[in-house]
Amino acid sequence: MDRSALTIAQNELTSLGPQRVWSLLVTVFGDLAQSENDTIDGPVLSILMTDMAIKPEAVRVALHRLRNDNWITSAKHGRTSRHSLTEHGRQISAAANPRIYGPPQDTAKNWQLVMLESTSSQSRTAMEKLGFAPLMPRVYVGASDAKPPKNALALPAVKTPAWLSAQFEPKDLVQDYAALHSALTKLEHALAKDHDLNAREIAVLRSAIVHSWRRLVLRHPNLPRQLYSDDWRGHDCRVLVMELLNRLPRPALSEIALS
Amino acid sequence: MDRSALTIAQNELTSLGPQRVWSLLVTVFGDLAQSENDTIDGPVLSILMTDMAIKPEAVRVALHRLRNDNWITSAKHGRTSRHSLTEHGRQISAAANPRIYGPPQDTAKNWQLVMLESTSSQSRTAMEKLGFAPLMPRVYVGASDAKPPKNALALPAVKTPAWLSAQFEPKDLVQDYAALHSALTKLEHALAKDHDLNAREIAVLRSAIVHSWRRLVLRHPNLPRQLYSDDWRGHDCRVLVMELLNRLPRPALSEIALS
Repeated sequence: MDRSALTIAQNELTSLGPQRVWSLLVTVFGDLAQSENDTIDGPVLSILMTDMAIKPEAVRVALHRLRNDNWITSAKHGRTSRHSLTEHGRQISAAANPRIYGPPQDTAKNWQLVMLESTSSQSRTAMEKLGFAPLMPRVYVGASDAKPPKNALALPAVKTPAWLSAQFEPKDLVQDYAALHSALTKLEHALAKDHDLNAREIAVLRSAIVHSWRRLVLRHPNLPRQLYSDDWRGHDCRVLVMELLNRLPRPALSEIALS
Repeated sequence: MDRSALTIAQNELTSLGPQRVWSLLVTVFGDLAQSENDTIDGPVLSILMTDMAIKPEAVRVALHRLRNDNWITSAKHGRTSRHSLTEHGRQISAAANPRIYGPPQDTAKNWQLVMLESTSSQSRTAMEKLGFAPLMPRVYVGASDAKPPKNALALPAVKTPAWLSAQFEPKDLVQDYAALHSALTKLEHALAKDHDLNAREIAVLRSAIVHSWRRLVLRHPNLPRQLYSDDWRGHDCRVLVMELLNRLPRPALSEIALS
C-alpha cells in the first residue's frame, strides 16, 4: 500500500522528533499496556518495534535502561520474556493521561494571570508543574482551573490582548505543532482510504500518533486557545489526535501477535 | 482659646508640609470661591492670610505668580482689589473636586491590575493620570473603575495578597498620612469643645484642613483600601476630612469680612 497510513506514520510522524527508543517504549507501554495486569510478550514487542523500524539491539538497550529506571519490569515465562510497567511507571503514565488523552472540551476556556511575591517565591519549574507558563519575571499565565501557589496574586482574565501570545508562546513549539498538524492531516486523509487495518497495524499507528503528540503536549502547560496566536496548532492537533485514536481503537494485546 | 481648634490648625496642620503661599491661595480660592461669580476682596483675603500667619508681602508675590500663571485674575473696584479664579483656574479646581471632596463611599471597592505590552506603551505619568500606580515595570494597579489604556491587559482582582501593598505603597505617604491623621484627630477633639465659630474662623479652619489634605491626596491615585497596608491612614483621613468639613460648612464670602 503506497502512501498508506503506515508509510505516512513512518515517514512523517516518527521523523518529527529525535528517535529515542526508550521514550518510544514509554509511549507503547503507556498506550497499549497501562492497565494493571497488562504485559507485552517479547515477540509481540519485537514485531511492533520492527514495524517501527527500530533495530532489536536498540530495543534491548532501551529495555535495559527502563528496567534500571524502575519503569519496566521483565519476567521470563518459559522461553518468553514478558514486559510490563512497574507500579512507578504505571503511576507516571496515568498522571500524564489527562494531558495526552484529554478531549478538547476538557481544556479550560479561561485563563488567569499569577504574580509571585518575588522571583524566589517559586521556581519556574515548580510553576510549570502547577500548570503555569512564564510571561515575565514573577508573572505567569495558566488555565483558570490551575491552582496557583498559596500567597500568590491570582487574577482571572477577562479579555486577552493580541500581543500577549507573542510574549509567552514558545516559537519552537509553534513550528513543531505546525509540522505535527500537517502530518496528522495527511494521515487522516490516508486513513479514509485504508480500510481493514489489523491489530498490529493499528498498534503501530497509535504508537506513532501518541508518541509524536506526547513529546510536544507534555512540554508545556495546557492553556486555553485564546492565549495563543493564530499560528498555534496545539489545540487543532488535539482535535485531530482524538479523532484518529477514536478511529483506531486500542487493540487487545493478544490480537497483535495473531495479526 | 488655648489649644483651640484654630491653634491646632495653625500648629499641627499647616506645619505638616512646606509652606507655599501660592499653593495655599489655590486651596483658599478652590474651597471658598470656586463658583463662577465668586470673588474675594483684597481686605478679606488679607484677613484670612493674616489669620494663617502669612505675611502680606508673601501674599502679594504669590498673587502675582498666580496671575502670571493665568490662575487668578484681579480687578479694581474703586480702591478695592477683587480676586477671582480665571476660567482656567476654575476648571482645574473643579477637576480636582472629586479627589478632594469625594465622600469615602465614592471610592471604588475593588481594584484591577493592568499590564502594558511594553514599558514604552505608556509613560508612567500617563498611567498615573489614568489613575494607576506603578507596581513593577509594565505592571500597574488601579481602582476597578479606572479606565486602562487601549490594548493593555486588564485583570480584575479577586483577592489581595498581603505583600502587594508593600510593593507599591509610597513609604513617605504612609508617614505623611499618619501625621495628618493624628493632627485631624486632635482638631476633631478640639472642635467638640469649640462652639460658636464665626465665618472667618471657619474659613481659616477649612482652608487649613483642605490644604493639608489636598497636598497628599492629589499625589497618588485613588485606590481601594484593601490594596494598602494596615499602616495606611489615607482612607481614614478622608473620613475625618469629610466629617470636619461637614461640621464646618463653607461660609458665605460676604460674612467673612463682617466676622
